[in-house]
Order: sequence, then structure tokens, then C-alpha cells
Amino acid sequence: MGYTDLDQLAINTIRVLAVDATFKANSGHPGAPMGMAPVSHVLFNKFMNFNPQNPDWVNRDRFVLSNGHGCMLQYALLHLFGYKVSMDDLKSFRQLDSITPGHPEAHDTPGVEVTTGPLGQGFSNAVGLAIAQAHTAGVFNKPGYELINNYTYTFFGDGCAMEGIASEAASLAGHLKLGNLIAIYDDNHISIDGDTKCAFTEDVTKRFESYGWHTVWVKDGDNDLEGIEAAIKEAREVKDKPTMIRLTTTIGFGSKLQGTGGVHGNPLKADDCQQVKERFGFDPQQSFVVPQQVYDLYNKTASNGAAKEQEWNQLFEKYASEHKNEHADLARRISGKLPEGWEKSLPTYKSTDAAVASRKLSEAVLEKIHSVVPELVSGSADLTGSNNTRWKNAVDFQPPEYNIGDWSGRYLRYGVREHAMAAIMNGLAAYGTIIPAGGTFLNFVSYAAGALRLSALSRVRVIHVATHDSIGLGEDGPTHQPIETLAHFRALPNCMVWRPADGNETSAAYYSAITSKHTPSILALTRQNLPQLENSSIEGAMKGAYVALEAPNAQVTIISTGSEVSIAIEAAGYLKEKHNVAARVVSVPCFEVFDAQDKEYRLSVLPDGIPVLSVEALSTMGWERYAHEQFGLNRFGASGPYKEVYQKFEFTPEGISKRALATIDFYKGHTVRSPINRAFQQIL
Amino acid sequence: MGYTDLDQLAINTIRVLAVDATFKANSGHPGAPMGMAPVSHVLFNKFMNFNPQNPDWVNRDRFVLSNGHGCMLQYALLHLFGYKVSMDDLKSFRQLDSITPGHPEAHDTPGVEVTTGPLGQGFSNAVGLAIAQAHTAGVFNKPGYELINNYTYTFFGDGCAMEGIASEAASLAGHLKLGNLIAIYDDNHISIDGDTKCAFTEDVTKRFESYGWHTVWVKDGDNDLEGIEAAIKEAREVKDKPTMIRLTTTIGFGSKLQGTGGVHGNPLKADDCQQVKERFGFDPQQSFVVPQQVYDLYNKTASNGAAKEQEWNQLFEKYASEHKNEHADLARRISGKLPEGWEKSLPTYKSTDAAVASRKLSEAVLEKIHSVVPELVSGSADLTGSNNTRWKNAVDFQPPEYNIGDWSGRYLRYGVREHAMAAIMNGLAAYGTIIPAGGTFLNFVSYAAGALRLSALSRVRVIHVATHDSIGLGEDGPTHQPIETLAHFRALPNCMVWRPADGNETSAAYYSAITSKHTPSILALTRQNLPQLENSSIEGAMKGAYVALEAPNAQVTIISTGSEVSIAIEAAGYLKEKHNVAARVVSVPCFEVFDAQDKEYRLSVLPDGIPVLSVEALSTMGWERYAHEQFGLNRFGASGPYKEVYQKFEFTPEGISKRALATIDFYKGHTVRSPINRAFQQIL
Repeated sequence: MGYTDLDQLAINTIRVLAVDATFKANSGHPGAPMGMAPVSHVLFNKFMNFNPQNPDWVNRDRFVLSNGHGCMLQYALLHLFGYKVSMDDLKSFRQLDSITPGHPEAHDTPGVEVTTGPLGQGFSNAVGLAIAQAHTAGVFNKPGYELINNYTYTFFGDGCAMEGIASEAASLAGHLKLGNLIAIYDDNHISIDGDTKCAFTEDVTKRFESYGWHTVWVKDGDNDLEGIEAAIKEAREVKDKPTMIRLTTTIGFGSKLQGTGGVHGNPLKADDCQQVKERFGFDPQQSFVVPQQVYDLYNKTASNGAAKEQEWNQLFEKYASEHKNEHADLARRISGKLPEGWEKSLPTYKSTDAAVASRKLSEAVLEKIHSVVPELVSGSADLTGSNNTRWKNAVDFQPPEYNIGDWSGRYLRYGVREHAMAAIMNGLAAYGTIIPAGGTFLNFVSYAAGALRLSALSRVRVIHVATHDSIGLGEDGPTHQPIETLAHFRALPNCMVWRPADGNETSAAYYSAITSKHTPSILALTRQNLPQLENSSIEGAMKGAYVALEAPNAQVTIISTGSEVSIAIEAAGYLKEKHNVAARVVSVPCFEVFDAQDKEYRLSVLPDGIPVLSVEALSTMGWERYAHEQFGLNRFGASGPYKEVYQKFEFTPEGISKRALATIDFYKGHTVRSPINRAFQQIL
Repeated sequence: MGYTDLDQLAINTIRVLAVDATFKANSGHPGAPMGMAPVSHVLFNKFMNFNPQNPDWVNRDRFVLSNGHGCMLQYALLHLFGYKVSMDDLKSFRQLDSITPGHPEAHDTPGVEVTTGPLGQGFSNAVGLAIAQAHTAGVFNKPGYELINNYTYTFFGDGCAMEGIASEAASLAGHLKLGNLIAIYDDNHISIDGDTKCAFTEDVTKRFESYGWHTVWVKDGDNDLEGIEAAIKEAREVKDKPTMIRLTTTIGFGSKLQGTGGVHGNPLKADDCQQVKERFGFDPQQSFVVPQQVYDLYNKTASNGAAKEQEWNQLFEKYASEHKNEHADLARRISGKLPEGWEKSLPTYKSTDAAVASRKLSEAVLEKIHSVVPELVSGSADLTGSNNTRWKNAVDFQPPEYNIGDWSGRYLRYGVREHAMAAIMNGLAAYGTIIPAGGTFLNFVSYAAGALRLSALSRVRVIHVATHDSIGLGEDGPTHQPIETLAHFRALPNCMVWRPADGNETSAAYYSAITSKHTPSILALTRQNLPQLENSSIEGAMKGAYVALEAPNAQVTIISTGSEVSIAIEAAGYLKEKHNVAARVVSVPCFEVFDAQDKEYRLSVLPDGIPVLSVEALSTMGWERYAHEQFGLNRFGASGPYKEVYQKFEFTPEGISKRALATIDFYKGHTVRSPINRAFQQIL
């Protein structure tokens, strides 16, 4: 309360910076920053705890700009508060290799929590950050030690509100009663097609209420700073529900085009820029100007934040004396280190062990490691019994009043919300104290493609437990049988796709997923049983590919993954017996990891002189990378008992042998170079 | 009203058939059919207009089982009403090559309108079917001729209700005031993880009201047939809103496990099957029994439906006399034929014509053909001005009372709802009188992956206008720049991915998309300008690939798509000039179409003896199919002016030439076989 001209000057400084940066770039979105400058000013200065000198402080309040196209708002704030975002960085807005790209990227810019822009994602990340806070508090807070009590704030616009992913996340947030989550809806009635009345006339407030949210409406978000402050205060006081503040604003406030679509995604014209500056008392001839008193004001907030972190550090130190183990655990998590020796708990298998479905092997891993990796938080999009994602004594993460779990619970019931699950996991991972794993059928990871690509781009460690990974799921049929899915995610940069063939490979997949701090992983797992392979080992699988069956004077190498590896090995026996042909078999549980090995190793796995046939019961797309010839499924599958489906499509020792012989024949008399040998290196 | 024991017997017959079929298959979902048998009985017998002898009658009421796992309900109904689904077909439930697969597939089973199972899709298809009805009525109904007035009914469960795609579609349906849409929510409180209280405690009714739906609650959906009938009657009378009927049921009604998750996705145990039959007055020793009086009852409904179609046919005949053109147009659409000579309207270009962005070339096509292809209905997910999907004089499809369009409008404002847009387009296409096209950025087609795969699987003609198709979009940066997207959809069976390089190729893409009745198409289009190529023609491009630049004694073939083709041609000039190396250039706007050409043609495009280098500014995944070496982008892009981004990643004449020389060098002294030559054929 008690806002002065200085507050207004600060707000207008943000607006003018957004005008200048988009004008200079000749690209970008001035409208949202100009409309949301007032609420940003109030929120960051009156409520948020953060220390620009240490953007990683674990108990900082989190801020997510879900309408990421408005990122000049965030960059301006980061600059004013003294994060490592300079005026030159603002001048390089949307320029090559700057830290101020067209949409906020967490790994590029200090103070950006998550990568946003694709609509609905940031909102859902915020739900993940809020869950992470509640869980971390549930685990570590003790009487007298409210170590973890930060809020998560997110701004979202009409676009985010229309996206299904945000609906999913909002419904779950309401169910989970996330009192520390405050979402501020920029109700400006404008989206790219113009007035939202052409496509979006629902009652957003009523919808959020139906999810169990508390709601508040600030009718004049352009000017009513007191009203904004009161709304945020009210939201913070509601502890058993998330709050949605509907903030009615004027997009592009101050522009001649304010309130229209014209100011959404295009810089202001030169004369409009001048007009805005004059209106706000700035020199129309100057650009990128910040009055010193605005810097001073924001520095004060920043200093307060630094002091808050100091206090917190003292509390955390004191916590060590009373709660030694918890202190050590949290300190370790914050440092990013894994528990010493955790990997010794990974199960290993001998070839004489029973055949087991890899979804069950995955469950065995979780059963073994959950106690030694306490930051592991599992879950499923309503397929718990099928994904095998829940260890036996797991406790659900639920508000205690439901009597079906508590805040410290490490198992999340995401509901049938695959896209939100993936985005929430991005938020969980971004919080810094959790390694999230979440299950669905591999086919339905596609529903989450939008979030997965942000996992990869923003370099977070999330684990997708993707069961029922092929036609091997049988009767559910083509609607549920993935064909294109592995090609899709193998083509996604910085995403590890694992398709383990047995128990040791499954353990290796988890080892890789958990130790890859900056990379998401998809574990493609079977519904059907798989035998334990003779030559498999965690070490071999950890190289991404290894020789599963060596054969002197081999005429062909069969390279395969997952459930087809043991069939390929059978095929090698069949070829020997029926055709006196020697065949090697290579298992390649993970392309991305194999590609990272040195060339000598890769050539030892796929040597010159021997043609390679790939076998995988999904699209052949991409297999040419390792194989001269490809056997796969470039059509949809079929509904039936899985063994019959495999027969139908000839994924049998006979079917593979037939193609191996054709491959040998085709390359007879030709010089065969390993697919590992290439003319040039890719840009990476 | 006036339900008798015969009605109850019919309902129990459906229940017992579902029990028998899932038991025999030892697989499937008995719970939903047992719970939804009563409402099905009432709906199909008391309200729905359909003729089992002609499942294609255009004015039939549409039924969509969005909770497709409950498909034994639908198969049982189709059988009882006399569709071509025999008792043997029911006995082959979930068996290989049966017409009763694990989830309903439209192209397999007469009477199944759309392919469902992946949750939320069917609900969204139903919104599309309802839009199609309203639009077709808007175009063809005349005073005295209410030709098109069918209802669309959909059943959906808790799973569908949780999916974001259904939220998107429901919000749009509310906005559009689709009074002919009636959605019946199987409120059984059970999903796979058990009681929905673990993840789904929102107020679904209130949520639908927030979207602008009318709602009704039937509290005893197991027994209250009168209540069900009254609710549906009420829903039909509400003409200015879609209606959601919340129907509280007991999942697996009749089973010992009724009301629990145990009956959701597993067949009943043998003793429970017997118990159910005894309880419902069936012989526990017999299976697959339909009492004759049930057949008789259902036959009566079927006969009424046939009579209704007869009446309609007479009306349609009479319509011909008064509305000759409209009659001819509708009759043609129903027949599936395109207007004679429409393709003559496709624009053609000479190489001297100006450089134009392919999104603008796409707009030029729409501008030219919309008047000769009246069934074309365009739209965008809130990117109209960026996707260029709207022809100048287009009218929006909107309820007339908004004064921004009308029911006959051919432009859909989907809002920022990519997934729902794709699924709604599936429904529009399935209706039979519309060819839908919808725009978003290529990167955000990924949000719609779940629906796209059903477009492909269910073989519907939908057109995705996917602009901003690469790093060429520039400043918006990596969050918006597709990398994996083309590989993803090229790996999807029965999906045509076009990436035209100029105007003629863009026209060819539309020709292909519009004439491919059973295949969805994605048109990947640029934001940036592209020159018109020297050798391009609609005919050449229609072969999927053609030689864009021939060169005698070429040492390398450069194969490319879209915006990179003209750079590849420049590279060929550079290679000649600087290195005296002759290079051919091939443009391959569509893999799928090229693959369908005869081998002789394919080999003429990619002949033996010359190594091939592919160039595309996206993932190289899959390019090995045509190219010995691949130049692409297996990392995320960058935010900046697009020419600088192209420079950074070396998609320049120099960058391509460098790699072409490396390719030539690498293959020197080696026999080079065309990638078209393969050892064996794929299973298709």
C-alpha cells in the first residue's frame, strides 16, 4: 500500500524497456509486458523472496511466465533486480547467441526457472514446482524449522487458459490443494486472432472454481496497485487451495494500439514508441533508459532478498545440529550429488534367471533403489498397475485430509493427464530436490510430446516409464500400439530413449537416466516376458550398444532392441542350424548413449565388412543409421494375442532369418563399410 | 416411458454378451458395457435415427464411444441391431484380423463412426461431427427442407473427462452453442488407479457449465430408465447449447466386483460370469445367447430407422426439384467425388515469378480453390494471420447471434487448442461432407500427435497447414523451431508429410492432400520467402520427388526439401564454379508419395553410381532412406534473424558444398548403389 510516483515510474520503465527491445529487434511481443508491468512490480517488490546474487537458493519464491512470448517483461525485471542480465543483453533481445532469446530458456538466462513459450507449459511447470515445494516441505520441515515455504507464482494468458495441458494441470492442482500456488491470469481479451470472443467465451473463473481453486478478480489491473496487492495477499492467506487471480488488463497499455491484437506480436511503430515515452514522461529520443531511482528501488528489494537468504542459511545451519540426517540429505540434494553408492542397489541378473516383462524389471529397480535414492518421486497417469511404477510400501503424495497419503508421499497419482504429467515433471525436476519418474503407455507419451521437447530443450532430468512398448501389448490393438513413437523421440535432441532387452539392460537404463542430470529419458518397456540374455551386463548396456552374440566369420550382424533381441538371438541359431550361416547379434538399448561412445568402440560393435540388418517391431525410420537393411513395421499393428501378432508380422526366428539371408545375398561381392563410418561430422 | 421386463432383458443381454466376449478373449473391459447398457438401450431404441442396412446415410444420428475400451458395448449393439457384425464376430473379440478389435476402428467395423480408445479423442471427434452437422445444415437446409438435423451422441468416462483434449473441445463446443451435441458422462467413480478420489475430485458439472453447456444429472443410471429418457429428451430440446448428462452408474453392474476397479480392465472370473448370468436370468452354462424377443425388439428399431431413411430419401429427391444446385452439390459430396476440374484452379508459377513464403503460397491456393471446392472448411488454432489459412471473403463458422459469422461459415476459429483442433478435424472429415484444413505452427502439430495418429489409423482426409516449419522462423527461437517433427510424422504410417520448395510444389501438395481420400496430410510451410524453382512443376512434385537440377557426369546428388532446395541449387552452382564439381539436385517434397512411385522412376531420380547427400534444416533421422550422407540439425535451433541462424548452422551454399565434397571424397573408389535398391521389401 502507499504507492507513489516512483512505483509508477518503475512500472513505466518496464513498459518502455519492452517497447525499446522489441523495436530494436524488430520482433517480439510488447503487449503482454506493457499490460503486466503493474502486477509484476507489486508482486516482485512486495511479496517475492529471491536473491539475484544466488538464483539457485532453494527456498526462493518461484516465478513462471507461462505466456513466455512476453519475456521482455521477465528480462526487464531480471535486469532491474540485478540478475546477470545486463542492459547490453536487453539490447541483444532475440539476437543470435544472446541470453535474451525469443522465449525464456532456463539454461540460458539466470533467474529464469523453466523454459516457456509453448502455451500451457509454464502453467503446468508451476504446478510441478508447487508440488515439489509441498513435498520437500513435507519431508524436511520440522517444528521450529519451516525451511521450505516458498510460493510459486505464475502468469498466464488466454492462450494458456485455452490449452488442454493447463486444464489438466489446474484440475490436479485443485485436487492436491496446493495452497502455495498463485496463478495470475492476464485477462486482456486478446489473442492472436484478435478478440477472444471469437473462440473463448467460457467463464474461466467458474472453471477454476470447479477445480477447487480459490479465485479473486482484480478489475483494473492497469492502475489498481492496491487492489493487486490485496488480491495477492488474500491468495497467500488461502492455505488449502491454489488461487487464481483474474487480472483484467489492457494489452499494450500506453500504446496507440492498446487493447487490440495489433500490439500482441509486433513491435510498436516508431511514432507509437515516441508517443508511449512521452506519455510516460520519458525522453522520446532516448532508448533503453532506466532512471537511477528505479534501480535504487529494485536494489532495495534485491538486498532484502539477499538478507532473507542469509537468515535462511543460518536457520539451515541450526537445523544441522538438530536434524543431522535430514540436513545432510537436503544439502546433498541441493548440491546435485547422488547418494554415494546408490547404484549398488541396482538388480543384476544371470541368464538362468526367469523371463520377466521389462515393466516388471523396472518395478524391481524401483523396489530396490527407492530407499537409497530418496529424491526419486514416482507416479503414473492412471496406469499404476500396468506401468508397475509404485513400490510396495510407497505412500501417495496427497493432502493429508484425504487420508490416502500425505505431503511427504513419493507417489503421484497424475490421473489420465499425460501431457500435464510430463510438464509437471519438468517443474518437479526444475525445483532441484526431486528426480521425477512417471508412467504411461509408450503410445501415450505422444500426448505429452509438447512437454517432452521442453524437458530436452531445458535440460531437465525426468524419467518416463513407457510400458506396453510395441505390438507386444497384443489385444488392445493398433490404437495403443506405438509405431512411430521411438523414431519421434530418437529424433528429439537431448532425449535418451532406452529400450532394454532384459534385466541388466533395464538396470543400466535406470543408471543412465538417474545419472544424466541434464537429459530426460524415456524407458520403453514391455508388457510381455523377456528372457535374461547370456551376454548382457549393466556395463555393456551402459555403452548404449554391445555385442549380445559374437560369431566367428559372421556373414551378417543383426542389430535389435528390447523384446526383439532374444528373437534375433534365436534367429542366429536358426541361421546356423538351417543355413550354416554365422550371424552376430548386437543389442542397442539406447541410440543416444551409443552415439556418444568413441569410434573405436562403435566400430567394434558394428565392424566393417559385415552387412547389418536391424530388427525392431516399430517404424524402421532412423535405423539406417546403424543398419544397411531394416526390418520393422511401417504400418499400424493388429489386435490379437501378442504371439499371433508377432507371427503375423514375421517377427520370428524364421522371419528374421529370411531377411538376414536376403541381406547377405544383396551385399555379396560388395565392399561393406560399417554405418559408423561417415563422410563428415554432424553439427551438435 | 413404460419400460417392461423385455427392456430389462435386452439390457442384461448386452451385459452378458460383454461378459462372454471378454471372458472368451481373456482380455478386455467388461465394466463399462455393464454399466452403460441401460443408457445405450434407451438412447438407441428411443431416440437415435439410424439404418443398419446403410451405415453411411448422411443424416443418421452419430454415436461415438469415447471410452473406446468399452467397445464390447458398441459391438453388442451393432450386432443386435443387425449391422454386419455377426455372433461369430463377437466370439472373435480381440482376435487377429477380426472386425471386433480391442478398441473400435472406424474402417474395420460397419457402424463405428470414428476410431476411439485413446482417451479424450472420441469426445473431441463428436464435437467435430456436431460442427459438421451444423455447418452442413447451414449450407443445405432450406425452408421446408430440414435435410440435415441429426444429433451427435457421445459417451465418455472419467478418463476422457481428465484429458486436456476433451477440455479444449468442450470449451469450443460451448462457445459454438452446438445444440445438437449430447455428451453422456459415465460417472462411475472408477478409473484404472481405482477410486477417482485419488486424482479427480473436481466438479465436472460445474466445469461444463463454465463452458456454456446445459447439464442434467441422472442419479441412478443403473435402473432409472425413465430418468435417462427424460434427461435425453431435455437435452434434445435445448437447442442453443450442447448438453452434458452426468449419469451416475455402477461399473460392472451385476458382477461380484461391481463398483470396483477390479471390473474395469479385466474379464470376470468364471464363477462371477456364472453368477452374473444367474442374476440376470440367463443359463450359466451357455454363452453368447441372445433371446429372440431381444432380437425382435431391436429389429423393430432398425426397421424404423430404415423407414426414416426412406422418408429422407424422398425428401432429398423433392429437394432436387426446388434446389437443383444444392442437391447436386450435396449428392456429390456424399458420393465422395470431388468437383469436376477443380484442380485447374491450382496456381502455377514460372521461375521468373517473385519469391514468396510457402505459407503465402498456401494462402494463394486457398484463395483460388475455395470457390471450386465448397466442402473445404479452413481454420486455425489462433494463428490465422501467421498461418495464412483464411481466404479474403471467408465467413466464420459461428452461432449467428454473435454477429461475427454464421452456421454456413467455412472458417473455424479453434482457439489455442491444437490437440482438439486435430481431433475435431477427424470428426469433420468423418461426417462425410467436409474436407477440413487447420493451421498452427509445425512445432505445435506435436501437441496434436495423439489425434494425428488416429487420423492416419482411421484413414481420414484432414489437412494440417503447418507453417513456420524450421529454424527459418528466426527470432521466436528454439521453443518454436521444429527439429524432430518431420521425422516423427514421416514415421507415422499413412500420413503424408509435404514440405514444398516453391509455388508449384505447394499446389501439388494441395492436389495430393485433397485427392487422398483416406490419408491425412501435413503441409510444412515456411515463414520466409522462397524463390520459384527453374524445373519445378505440379506434375513433377506430384511424384513426391523429381530432379530439380540435372547435371551431366554429376559426382553427387543433393536431395533436399522446402526452403533448403533453392540453397542446394545455389550450392550446385558454387561447386561448379569453385571446385569444378558437377552436382545434381533432387527435390523431395513428400517421402510417402515418392515411395509409392515405381522403382524405375525412383532410380531415375536417385540413380546408381552417384552418392547422395541430403540437406534439410531439421533432424537427419530417416534421411538415410534416400541419402548416403545426411546434413541436418540434430540439436535445437537458435533465436535470431533467420538468415543469421541459417549461417550459424551452415545451411548455406558453402556449408552444403563442403559436405558434398566430403561425400564425394568418401565414396571415391567405392561402388555406389542407389539407396532405392534394397535387399527386401517391407511389410505394408
